[in-house]
Amino acid sequence: MREGRRVGKEDPRRVVHALKVGLALALVSSFYYYQPLYDNFGVNAMWAVMTVVVVFEFSVGATLGKGINRAVATLVAGGLGLGAHHLASFSGPTIEPILLAIFVFVQAALSTFVRFFPRVKARYDYGILIFILTFSLISVSGFREDEILDLAHKRLSTVIMGGVSCVLISIFVCPVWAGQDLHSLLASNFDKLSHFLQEFGDEYFEATKDGDIKEVEKKRKNLERYKSILNSKSNEEALANFAKWEPRHGQFRFRHPWKQYLDVAALLRQCAYRIDTLNSYFNSDVQVPMDIKKKLEEPLRRMSLESGKSMQEMSNSLKKMTKSSSSDIHVLNSQSACKDLSTLIKSGILNDVEPQQMISLLTTVSLLIDIVNLTEEISKSVHELASAARFTNKKKSKVSFEKSNPVSIGRVKPIISNDDDDDHVVTILGDVDTSNHVDQSRGGSSMDSSNHVVIKIDDDEDSIHEKHEDSSNVHVHTTCVSCGQTSASDVCNSGNKRIDNRETK
Amino acid sequence: MREGRRVGKEDPRRVVHALKVGLALALVSSFYYYQPLYDNFGVNAMWAVMTVVVVFEFSVGATLGKGINRAVATLVAGGLGLGAHHLASFSGPTIEPILLAIFVFVQAALSTFVRFFPRVKARYDYGILIFILTFSLISVSGFREDEILDLAHKRLSTVIMGGVSCVLISIFVCPVWAGQDLHSLLASNFDKLSHFLQEFGDEYFEATKDGDIKEVEKKRKNLERYKSILNSKSNEEALANFAKWEPRHGQFRFRHPWKQYLDVAALLRQCAYRIDTLNSYFNSDVQVPMDIKKKLEEPLRRMSLESGKSMQEMSNSLKKMTKSSSSDIHVLNSQSACKDLSTLIKSGILNDVEPQQMISLLTTVSLLIDIVNLTEEISKSVHELASAARFTNKKKSKVSFEKSNPVSIGRVKPIISNDDDDDHVVTILGDVDTSNHVDQSRGGSSMDSSNHVVIKIDDDEDSIHEKHEDSSNVHVHTTCVSCGQTSASDVCNSGNKRIDNRETK
Repeated sequence: MREGRRVGKEDPRRVVHALKVGLALALVSSFYYYQPLYDNFGVNAMWAVMTVVVVFEFSVGATLGKGINRAVATLVAGGLGLGAHHLASFSGPTIEPILLAIFVFVQAALSTFVRFFPRVKARYDYGILIFILTFSLISVSGFREDEILDLAHKRLSTVIMGGVSCVLISIFVCPVWAGQDLHSLLASNFDKLSHFLQEFGDEYFEATKDGDIKEVEKKRKNLERYKSILNSKSNEEALANFAKWEPRHGQFRFRHPWKQYLDVAALLRQCAYRIDTLNSYFNSDVQVPMDIKKKLEEPLRRMSLESGKSMQEMSNSLKKMTKSSSSDIHVLNSQSACKDLSTLIKSGILNDVEPQQMISLLTTVSLLIDIVNLTEEISKSVHELASAARFTNKKKSKVSFEKSNPVSIGRVKPIISNDDDDDHVVTILGDVDTSNHVDQSRGGSSMDSSNHVVIKIDDDEDSIHEKHEDSSNVHVHTTCVSCGQTSASDVCNSGNKRIDNRETK
Repeated sequence: MREGRRVGKEDPRRVVHALKVGLALALVSSFYYYQPLYDNFGVNAMWAVMTVVVVFEFSVGATLGKGINRAVATLVAGGLGLGAHHLASFSGPTIEPILLAIFVFVQAALSTFVRFFPRVKARYDYGILIFILTFSLISVSGFREDEILDLAHKRLSTVIMGGVSCVLISIFVCPVWAGQDLHSLLASNFDKLSHFLQEFGDEYFEATKDGDIKEVEKKRKNLERYKSILNSKSNEEALANFAKWEPRHGQFRFRHPWKQYLDVAALLRQCAYRIDTLNSYFNSDVQVPMDIKKKLEEPLRRMSLESGKSMQEMSNSLKKMTKSSSSDIHVLNSQSACKDLSTLIKSGILNDVEPQQMISLLTTVSLLIDIVNLTEEISKSVHELASAARFTNKKKSKVSFEKSNPVSIGRVKPIISNDDDDDHVVTILGDVDTSNHVDQSRGGSSMDSSNHVVIKIDDDEDSIHEKHEDSSNVHVHTTCVSCGQTSASDVCNSGNKRIDNRETK
């Protein structure tokens, strides 16, 4: 009972599914109860019951796949079985059973072997099974029954009726779409990784409090939700296979690029492997003292936080099915944090660290760099998915702020917001006072009283310019990223697509 | 056709399996052809055919599991179905179909829900499916057929006959044991990881030759065989589930500790994650110059080589099903290499390395340390498996040699061989000329003309001593590992179980 409540709570659709199966079975039972139907089909009515029990699956795609497999296989095998029976009947009554047995043997052996082909196994395994079953039954039954054509016809009709009932009920009564599930699974995988990366800073840089053990355990459990991604491959592949059978539903077309979902999922799994290694360092024997960790805190925190945020953005873009490049900005931010980190390490800040601790610390560093690089790849892959799946463009323009991090060690902190429709980017570098809200209009630049820098990108994507505005130093200039030309003008002749991170001077 | 040849070549047992299924089907077809059998069962003979098609699986365990599930479910559901029919028949002819429909609805909904329970899903999913099917068929058929008891009896017998044919053929004609497969899979996973670790040194420290591209690709492909381990979890779990159904076969008892196999496999997967990260550094943008890599070559090579060797030993011990502690020695060696590495890094050998390269190098170091630690855990887990599975003790004693590594930078290289029966360990440290074979007798020590060191461990496990023999320097002494006491005597009062690595002086 307790187990039942847990299973039901985990996914309430399971309860609905159970009721749907009950409904479908009670419905096809009417083949027996209702006299005119029974007069027509007789004992063959049982094939409808059997079809419902075997074909009705949790998701629409799985049910449709099995139903179509079963109907087509029954049709083809029925035809071939009739042919085999007809062929065998030409021989004498002694040879006929031998011939039939040979037919059955050959087709069973061949079909069973074909089931091992990976592509067949993925989509048509059930169809081949039914093919073997029906062929054997029809061809050997024919040896006994005279009205074999009638038998085949009735069997096919009852199978199709059973299958159609399943499909209709699964589509029209609280449908569970495998495609939607795969879509949500991918988004939730993004969320899980994002959660870990956004919490990483606190987990790594804050000493464990001995407060509420339950609280700590809960937090840890929450953090380790990413572990489910490590072994999600088979589940994702099954869902993608089911989804391919599904008709258009909601925002998913019939030929939605499900394969691309698997590509993104594979990259996420790669990232989860790195995170798993990273996580093992939390519990490792070699603990790096906090004062050494703190030396790298700012860029490390920013790297993980920005990667996490970019994954959050990708998850949002998936959930809303909108194209969005706001994740790119976080990717750029995390990359600039990488550069800061490398500068920091080059400055010799770690020269007096013990080797043992150095290894542990630098591995954390390296894994985070890996994760930042993977995040970029994932972001690319999500963009590909967004165009292949024809996600809509984002409509609202937004400017985002970030409160100055209290552990900032004086370096610049880029917060960039991208407005897709207008093709321009507004970036606020440096410490931003959250009380100052920047009102942003097309092509304009932002101004506020605190010390900050604005990167302004014109509608012409090929010329990207930086505009430094430092109100405290009364020091305004615009620098082209590619040619380094600094002037009051916004225009320069060279083209450049990359925003470099510049520091305030 | 080409696909068929590939699939058949990959595992020839697939061809045999296909022929077995054909044989079983042709056999149960005799229910139709052979008059006395047909007189007895009539159309119910088709249940035998259906059972064979659906129950016959690739491995004995899967077939047995499905067969037992089907037989038991048919029996129980048949009984309950009869009961339901009996109960409903008390009511009038109008209410009876309604009552029956309610019964069918309730049992189908309940059973379908129970299929979501993870433990039920793992082992009894098919049984529940057959339960729903049989219950529905029997209870609604009863509405029409008068001789329902006879029907139930015939159906059960044909199902059992079909099931028994499958089980007998799958056990006695070229059986495929899921347990044996799981056992081999685990051993091959060890081999794959071991191959990577043993080749790691060459791959990491030798500049890529631009010679034969095909050769290089083949090597790389061979190296990346470990990737199959990353996603092997579902496969292993399925095999373990099947194996639990299998009777005693070969060296596997009925209650062989299959769960322990999964534990070891999980650790191997952990190790594969690390190796995957390591592998990504081969292809990363940041290439550490060879002269910097070379500084750490000796201990790094030794760490990966010894971990690889210990996995090789574990694989051998699994394959032969013998208890062996020779893997422990390689684990100890890899750990001592870890210490050497740490000493080397502490010596400041990397002080002038660029940060970017330092990160990449130290990550490799750290991942290898991780792998060494994991290897120890894996070794422990294999020992647990060996006792739980009652592996036999190794009979032959053996002394192993290793040719002096040409890139050795003058440090000691321990090669230890363990003889389980005699409880003593002979270790040869330093460069050993392979032309010198050491003849080893119980408790004795080895002598040869080249420069080497021997660690001798007496039968008393609690006092482990090192004996340095340096024939070129005529400098023989024995040092206790724990108290550091150096003398000509072999006995010391303090107890110590750990062999520390000492250098020749």
